[in-house]
Amino acid sequence: MKHALEFYFDVGSPAAYLAWTQVPKIARETGCEVEYRPFLLGGVFQATGNRSPMDVPAKAQYMIDDLQRFARRYGVPFVNNSHFPINTLALMRMALGLQLREPGRMIPFVDAVVRAIWVDDKDMNDPATVGAVLQNAGFDPEKLLALASDPAVKDDLKAVTREAVQRGVFGAPTFFVGQDMFWGQDRLDFVKEALQP
Amino acid sequence: MKHALEFYFDVGSPAAYLAWTQVPKIARETGCEVEYRPFLLGGVFQATGNRSPMDVPAKAQYMIDDLQRFARRYGVPFVNNSHFPINTLALMRMALGLQLREPGRMIPFVDAVVRAIWVDDKDMNDPATVGAVLQNAGFDPEKLLALASDPAVKDDLKAVTREAVQRGVFGAPTFFVGQDMFWGQDRLDFVKEALQP
Repeated sequence: MKHALEFYFDVGSPAAYLAWTQVPKIARETGCEVEYRPFLLGGVFQATGNRSPMDVPAKAQYMIDDLQRFARRYGVPFVNNSHFPINTLALMRMALGLQLREPGRMIPFVDAVVRAIWVDDKDMNDPATVGAVLQNAGFDPEKLLALASDPAVKDDLKAVTREAVQRGVFGAPTFFVGQDMFWGQDRLDFVKEALQP
Repeated sequence: MKHALEFYFDVGSPAAYLAWTQVPKIARETGCEVEYRPFLLGGVFQATGNRSPMDVPAKAQYMIDDLQRFARRYGVPFVNNSHFPINTLALMRMALGLQLREPGRMIPFVDAVVRAIWVDDKDMNDPATVGAVLQNAGFDPEKLLALASDPAVKDDLKAVTREAVQRGVFGAPTFFVGQDMFWGQDRLDFVKEALQP
């Protein structure tokens, strides 16, 4: 029996962005199905007492080099966003809302958002910039804003995030293959091993 | 010109133990010289504001699985020490004192100590256990205790630790290849790449 790959991500995490660029390749190589789990990393930090590596200045300095090394290894562009940290609450509500209501549009949405943040160094804390990025990617910003304000979508994002914490998640990206949890884009080789039939 | 590999370690870090088991192999494979840097991880945490991953319960739970996965990949034994955290101040003074005064004995000393902690699950917070472990490994515990109480050795450990922090170190194990810093036993593949002539 083939395993599914569950992938918890938040667009505000540079490591989750790197994982986002690699997951489709792993799916092709292993034949697994990917279950995308948009969630709120800030909520996970609050619930678990974990914090961003960027909160320790020496670690933040190093992380930029480390992420660049992986980006080079993967052959993908990566820019350390100069507007970090990004409040991703509305963006992750949009991602989850799309997944639930227009499933085919979630991936193009996240593609556009992570490219804006982690390739084009956009300030996604600025509503006008968010609007322009979404419009350029063929989305209706007003419609997405309505989605992000929908109480049902708000509750859904809370539920996904709460469930992640209950399963032991403390950071992003996090993967599950069956019961086995893997944390970090730097564990994708173990994820791939776990997906071998 | 061949690079040297600088290796900052503290016997109280399970990740540093895993790195300890792999560094000789990397030295053989790349022909690099290893410069061992015994230091005090607790001092680094204090100076940088970083903390052990074991301080976040959900992360601690995961780290045990993660370290086991790497131990299996490396083919080395690993037991999550049930007496963790270990106060390694005296042990790291002994390691550095030996390195400075009887260089050939530092590696056998650390081998014995990490085996006691990360393979045999010994309580190295207990002075009697430490004494027995050292005696079994052919060391004179009294002599080593005297070394750990030597003001010059105490100052040396502070100096190595302070220099590490000044170079940007925030955790263990940490490696330098020239100016390039690598943090974590999970970055040994990058270390190996950096050591290629």
